Amino acid sequence: MNSLDLIKAAKAASKDMALASAATKNEVLKSISQLLETNREEILHANKQDLEANQNLPAGLLDRLTLTTDRIEALRVQLAELIAISDPIGELIQDIHRPNGLNLKQVRVPFGLIGAIYEARPNVTVDIAAMAIKTGNAIVLRGGSAAEQTNQVLVALIQEALSQNGLPVEAVVSVDAFGRSGATAMMEARGLIDVLIPRGSAELIRTVVENSKVPVIETGDGIVHVFLDATAKLDYAIDIVTNSKTQRPSVCNALETLLVHKDAVDRVLLPVLEALSQLGVVIHGDELVQKLYPKAVPATEADWATEYLSLDLSVKVVDSLDQALEHIHKYSSSHTESIITEDQANAERFLAEVDSAVVMVNASTRFTDGFEFGFGAEVGISTQKLHARGPMGLNELTTSKWLVRGSGQSRA
Amino acid sequence: MNSLDLIKAAKAASKDMALASAATKNEVLKSISQLLETNREEILHANKQDLEANQNLPAGLLDRLTLTTDRIEALRVQLAELIAISDPIGELIQDIHRPNGLNLKQVRVPFGLIGAIYEARPNVTVDIAAMAIKTGNAIVLRGGSAAEQTNQVLVALIQEALSQNGLPVEAVVSVDAFGRSGATAMMEARGLIDVLIPRGSAELIRTVVENSKVPVIETGDGIVHVFLDATAKLDYAIDIVTNSKTQRPSVCNALETLLVHKDAVDRVLLPVLEALSQLGVVIHGDELVQKLYPKAVPATEADWATEYLSLDLSVKVVDSLDQALEHIHKYSSSHTESIITEDQANAERFLAEVDSAVVMVNASTRFTDGFEFGFGAEVGISTQKLHARGPMGLNELTTSKWLVRGSGQSRA
Repeated sequence: MNSLDLIKAAKAASKDMALASAATKNEVLKSISQLLETNREEILHANKQDLEANQNLPAGLLDRLTLTTDRIEALRVQLAELIAISDPIGELIQDIHRPNGLNLKQVRVPFGLIGAIYEARPNVTVDIAAMAIKTGNAIVLRGGSAAEQTNQVLVALIQEALSQNGLPVEAVVSVDAFGRSGATAMMEARGLIDVLIPRGSAELIRTVVENSKVPVIETGDGIVHVFLDATAKLDYAIDIVTNSKTQRPSVCNALETLLVHKDAVDRVLLPVLEALSQLGVVIHGDELVQKLYPKAVPATEADWATEYLSLDLSVKVVDSLDQALEHIHKYSSSHTESIITEDQANAERFLAEVDSAVVMVNASTRFTDGFEFGFGAEVGISTQKLHARGPMGLNELTTSKWLVRGSGQSRA
Repeated sequence: MNSLDLIKAAKAASKDMALASAATKNEVLKSISQLLETNREEILHANKQDLEANQNLPAGLLDRLTLTTDRIEALRVQLAELIAISDPIGELIQDIHRPNGLNLKQVRVPFGLIGAIYEARPNVTVDIAAMAIKTGNAIVLRGGSAAEQTNQVLVALIQEALSQNGLPVEAVVSVDAFGRSGATAMMEARGLIDVLIPRGSAELIRTVVENSKVPVIETGDGIVHVFLDATAKLDYAIDIVTNSKTQRPSVCNALETLLVHKDAVDRVLLPVLEALSQLGVVIHGDELVQKLYPKAVPATEADWATEYLSLDLSVKVVDSLDQALEHIHKYSSSHTESIITEDQANAERFLAEVDSAVVMVNASTRFTDGFEFGFGAEVGISTQKLHARGPMGLNELTTSKWLVRGSGQSRA
């Protein structure tokens, strides 16, 4: 069997998945949870092999590649949460009665076959396969090659869970064994894969977007801004800026550029920079910031366009809200922006004029997240405008169809 | 100015469009309507030049290229209808209050900059530009080169209408003057064009899908099926099949393949074929159909996969609903399918198991249409599953954004 045969088998299996009841789909998730527990040693053994074979990877990537008993337990907690969420499939979205007697019902249905291309993070394999099953989809997976042994074990367990509940094992398949040609086959699978979701580095996503012939939902990088307005509360500013920057610097909703109104420099910026400094943050400042805060290194034009994903922060002083909006418009990746202000009119202008997936007032940018939004599960954060924008939960793995019931109507 | 400069100018103009009030946007549509009337002679003159320069085109395409006083009047009626529809922008989609005090509002917003690539149909220029304006978007147009003179006049009038109402003329621009390089620039305009909508032949759409680096909504071809079940009412069958096939054979929602349950052959199929024959339809039949109906020509394997867009129809007898579903699954382009039946259980199975944008019971496939669905205006029919599926109205030219209002929240 080659990648294309696997993809075709998954497409065929998607028909059964679409008709599976909510109860059956939840039973599959329960089986996965049990199998993760009873096969923990086998999973950890495979993961150890992956870790040993990839010791040369940077520490951050190795950490993402690592499974532990606790992390497997965390996956089981997430599966329990997913089971508790109501099934979105079948939801009535619109119900229209036309004057000619036709009834049009728009109902929520699965996509059919989803493709996921992601990096070497084995927990994503379970997460995204479970979300696909919950939404009645089949899925083709292509994980990072560094996680190949672990993913092979995980996919086999998921298939066993499908089989235990009378569903086709081909509903969750991996093309990892085919290397890069597997990913290429997915990108070319027009008419088979209904939507392709790349998750990972900006480069991975760009490659998929530029080469895919099937529809893609981009999850994307975050050049995320906070604007400290003239009226910003000092405690809000310190809490929100340090949380946005340092709570988990390596993720897409972490702060990368701090903009500060000139009238907030003495009162707010200096204490904020002091707090950041104590947490190990390196400040890349414009000229004024360098003058006020000698520890700052000079910010270059490239800094404003950089997603550091590290304890670095670029800082710029602006004359006005307009200038802040202009800077955001020029450099933001349209992921998340937050204003810290007590000025209601400025808050509303910021919400209206910033063209990002999530725009905030007086809150940490770290809240752009499916779990924090209360979605229970997360596919990723969409930074495109088509289909989904912002944190993607179960609904974003569905589409709709129109059911038309008539009594012999023809068009005049 | 080259195509890229024009696209950039349109992107900049999209900021003003997004903030325009519903009243202002309606005033622009009113101005367009007035300008269409006061400049009718100029429009018809340009159209005459296009028609003279393209006399070698097939009759169908020449018809689509032609504007007349009546057709301009029809555009003005559509503009009046569009003005009457309420503005979708600003609509509250979800309103979530989180336990930590955060308020999350998902609101409907414009895409920003839309791209439309379509064939030589000048009425589409007005239609789609008007829908973009109504939804607060800017738009870049690339119409078929045969309509270039007409489109140039129409775009100038639309820009005059924008200008009369204080909006930037760059909100509606055409790259027609740049020929094919204009379309290429649109497909490459990542970060500038938020969504690209191709409208036209299957080949045009495939080219855009395969070459675009910006997100695309596919409007697609229709290999549309009607299934006459064993219990089909004779009058429904005759009305619906003749209407689906002959009311406008050249469009995507016209019937292409008729499937018939073997138990309905004598009672229903023969009278239906007789009615079709009187309307000039050529029957491409399987062996049984050829035997029963000597005027039928033999259907080849290629017929089942063909969108005729003409007075041709392929006809096949099946043993069961399962066999009909199998045929549809194999050959349908997932646009529209209809079952004619009195059997409620079969109707529900057909609705559930056919994976098409629109699935019907006892109705003509010609109803898959934005106006017939009551949307007032139509961008096209989406045959993909991402973002929009089926007839696309104003909502489908919008996206959403999340507005988060906090009081100093940081993530634990």
